[in-house]
Amino acid sequence: MPAISELDHIAIVLVNTRNPLNIGAAARAMSNFGVFDLRVVNPYETSFREARSAVGAAEVLGAAREFDSVAEAVADCALVIGTTAAGRRELQHPLRSLDQAAPFIARQSRRGRAAILFGSEKRGLSNDDLSHCHWLLRIPTREEHGSMNLGQAVAVCVYELARQIMKPYGLKPARVVKAGGKPQRPGKTVKPERADPAHAKDLERITLLLLEALRLSGYIQAATEPGRSALADEKIRRIVRRLNLSTADAEAWLGMLRQMVWKMGKS
Amino acid sequence: MPAISELDHIAIVLVNTRNPLNIGAAARAMSNFGVFDLRVVNPYETSFREARSAVGAAEVLGAAREFDSVAEAVADCALVIGTTAAGRRELQHPLRSLDQAAPFIARQSRRGRAAILFGSEKRGLSNDDLSHCHWLLRIPTREEHGSMNLGQAVAVCVYELARQIMKPYGLKPARVVKAGGKPQRPGKTVKPERADPAHAKDLERITLLLLEALRLSGYIQAATEPGRSALADEKIRRIVRRLNLSTADAEAWLGMLRQMVWKMGKS
Repeated sequence: MPAISELDHIAIVLVNTRNPLNIGAAARAMSNFGVFDLRVVNPYETSFREARSAVGAAEVLGAAREFDSVAEAVADCALVIGTTAAGRRELQHPLRSLDQAAPFIARQSRRGRAAILFGSEKRGLSNDDLSHCHWLLRIPTREEHGSMNLGQAVAVCVYELARQIMKPYGLKPARVVKAGGKPQRPGKTVKPERADPAHAKDLERITLLLLEALRLSGYIQAATEPGRSALADEKIRRIVRRLNLSTADAEAWLGMLRQMVWKMGKS
Repeated sequence: MPAISELDHIAIVLVNTRNPLNIGAAARAMSNFGVFDLRVVNPYETSFREARSAVGAAEVLGAAREFDSVAEAVADCALVIGTTAAGRRELQHPLRSLDQAAPFIARQSRRGRAAILFGSEKRGLSNDDLSHCHWLLRIPTREEHGSMNLGQAVAVCVYELARQIMKPYGLKPARVVKAGGKPQRPGKTVKPERADPAHAKDLERITLLLLEALRLSGYIQAATEPGRSALADEKIRRIVRRLNLSTADAEAWLGMLRQMVWKMGKS
């Protein structure tokens, strides 16, 4: 049943979450609407463990994975989307409203995993986090009060995704549970075709090789000021994401960049 | 603006809420989506007062009213809707899924107030509460995990109402903004913006620089066989076209490649 595997290809990624209640709330909403892949990046102290008591979300929380960086958390994803509140000034990404975004996510998630990133309660996603994203999603809140509670933001997103993904198939967002068994797992793994979008892992490899090539060539100065270096990293990370590389082209670029880095490193 | 007054005719009624955090969360979501009429019936002890600190929801909480009974709380409403979790056995009311319910609520709310009732966290709405309702609304959760967190349930409902009520008036909740650019105005001059697609001239420059870099690095062998060289040229030309570069990104790639070619040519 294609509809079910599409929701199964969506991962919710919570970055730097402070409040364990919010991790629990996110997990509960995911479970309510049939999205099961929860990933957390650097939760504050014991947030992650404490969240494990959230009502009815044992399955999602039990399977949740913890990562040290956004790059690692989204490594197997072909589409990475950042969420942002209203009125963000310095947008360097395309921005879509949630209801407009859902069809894009649905289409993409047929071909590979899609990750939706949610930032910390206080600061949202950092520029570095955003540099891993292909585009941004905004929940259409009032301009005067754009900042949502984290658990509620996740709930609204998974509701809209389930609504739009399930509708074309006339399916109620319910999962098939075998008698006495666990809910069916996706089963099909997402094996990438050569024309499918490249995984974030490969895009990050390309980013790192390109940065090395640019440093070796003198295009980027060797990091004297750490601030400037981080800025260059973000800029290059974004420029690589904007290439929209396929799996096959990503491989080709990896090969080309490796050779150039080798050549410049030798001299 | 009629659209806004329709949302103004919707009241959220929380019945026997136990946890003050949930009243605060409901108020916050209402404020996020522009629904301002909050009514509480018999909140547990001090729940209502404690909720008054909820982030960004001061306006909604400040105007919220407390009632001793559902009857009093909905007295001025022309339509009263109860919310229910999945799998409720003894349904004596018509039941509508949230996305189907929203147009009914929108239509009705042009003519009078509509109240949406949410029951307590543990037990939901009682049969007595339900007896005040015209029909029931169900958020389309999975059957295996139908019970939502109260604050999240309110958030999903007001999101869906705002989405459907705002849409017919062409009020786009959020704009799609191209990366790096302002929203495009119609009828302006055809001068390429930085986010516009790069001209073929620049793509060809990039192709030639990339080919030179690949030859200098040894990735492509110096042209011993002209046939093979032409093949490499085509392959690289296609790969560059597939990048779908913007004007601004094409400039950046030109700069990066020039520097690498210079560095490798020097050695």
